[in-house]
Amino acid sequence: MDKICIVGVGLIGGSLGLALKKANWCGRVLGFGRNVERLQEAVSVGAIDKFSTDPGDVAGCDLIFLATPVGSYESILDQIREHLSPETIITDGGSTKASVVRAAESVFGEIPARFVPGHPIAGKEKSGVAHADANLYRDHKVILTPVELTDADAVQVVTDMWKACGAVVETLDVGQHDRVLAATSHLPHVIAYALVNAVAETTYVQKIFDFAAGGFRDSSRVASSDPTMWRDICLENREAILEMTSRYREELARLECLIEGADGDGLFELFAGCKKVRDARFG
Amino acid sequence: MDKICIVGVGLIGGSLGLALKKANWCGRVLGFGRNVERLQEAVSVGAIDKFSTDPGDVAGCDLIFLATPVGSYESILDQIREHLSPETIITDGGSTKASVVRAAESVFGEIPARFVPGHPIAGKEKSGVAHADANLYRDHKVILTPVELTDADAVQVVTDMWKACGAVVETLDVGQHDRVLAATSHLPHVIAYALVNAVAETTYVQKIFDFAAGGFRDSSRVASSDPTMWRDICLENREAILEMTSRYREELARLECLIEGADGDGLFELFAGCKKVRDARFG
Repeated sequence: MDKICIVGVGLIGGSLGLALKKANWCGRVLGFGRNVERLQEAVSVGAIDKFSTDPGDVAGCDLIFLATPVGSYESILDQIREHLSPETIITDGGSTKASVVRAAESVFGEIPARFVPGHPIAGKEKSGVAHADANLYRDHKVILTPVELTDADAVQVVTDMWKACGAVVETLDVGQHDRVLAATSHLPHVIAYALVNAVAETTYVQKIFDFAAGGFRDSSRVASSDPTMWRDICLENREAILEMTSRYREELARLECLIEGADGDGLFELFAGCKKVRDARFG
Repeated sequence: MDKICIVGVGLIGGSLGLALKKANWCGRVLGFGRNVERLQEAVSVGAIDKFSTDPGDVAGCDLIFLATPVGSYESILDQIREHLSPETIITDGGSTKASVVRAAESVFGEIPARFVPGHPIAGKEKSGVAHADANLYRDHKVILTPVELTDADAVQVVTDMWKACGAVVETLDVGQHDRVLAATSHLPHVIAYALVNAVAETTYVQKIFDFAAGGFRDSSRVASSDPTMWRDICLENREAILEMTSRYREELARLECLIEGADGDGLFELFAGCKKVRDARFG
């Protein structure tokens, strides 16, 4: 690779830049975005070599990585489309995939053969290039969700890119990805937001926070995530998320019912079953 | 203190024993319980000096610490009551306090003046004396909830005991303790159990666990806690927990409603508000 472009140089884009530069995977890394101050910060931490706010400058890039909130993809693809060659590989780091395919279809008519939707399963609750880390993807999974139209060699290049960052690349069907992520990531975020809000609205919120310990800190951690990113995820993966929250609401109601009815045996059985399932995975 | 007795030498009781012996706070530590094998393990890790399964052996102890699941207190107090002197201080590590006062009232008619209900805000999702740690309470809060009848000097002795473990002792009213803990600890546990169960019942649970990363691990961590302990907490703090789950259910419904209606501005506002509240406490 000679020249790649990272669109949106925050935690995800910045960490990719740092990792690829560390691995010497490409010649130059261009950062594209709107906020000059943040782009300058990305240069100063070494995540990108140069930056631009002019869509015309993506011309000549071999690979473009979209790392902005997924709600912005359509507008970004629309701005850069006339500067792309048929050879340019596009990939992304968005947390929802059906919506990314829809955005590409809406701009290009059909998703370009060299557009490889992807999703690194890594992150922090801290956003911004200041928290970017060359090792963020090391030993983490990256899910690629190529569609029927996708070029196999474009998939190979994107796979190589992630392997250069130390990641483990796997492939899922678009719909499967969105359902799995609704369960592993989107539902836990919704739950944490509801938890923080439920507590924040009590009259004794200060006492609660005074005595909140490790359990509460961990359970609410993801509620410190970037609000724009999570707004977009909730909008873009709406159906799969609502399917999971609906399942979740049923489980919560079942639990409340056992507590209400003081059903000790029922509670024990449910808790022991949960412990077994979770320990088997995270022991 | 010459001789103290720890009833139930698991994670909480065992960690107190290790901490007090390390601090040389008392002469001898007796462990009382039912399971000889576990009591032997407690001796071998140094959490207690001797053990007994005979309630008569608590006679002569200056202080008794109850560290079994709260549902067992009434039966334990009933077994040891005839062996107590009026000077014996009783305290405990239970996660609910109104129920502890009720258990004492039920056994003694009224709560003894030298019974100091307490709750160390520390723990792990791993139970058992094998995970006990002399530093478990260091820099952690311990809440004491004395009632009107409680002797001030008994409170002072229990305060000194916890300070010897490196803990920070605070006092709350019984009802306030139970409401605060319902929010900071019991609700997060209920939420985590519902999360694990919601996921476990999908047809693609294996794929979900394959791709579950740090967010899911942290959000579900407390679902690996001891089922007996949490059964008892749910039964003993029923009302305060149901009050919190009801608040929580409303917040969840509000969020689902915003997602359903694709209300981006509403989602952003809610997420940004949560982030602000949480960062202010844990930032």
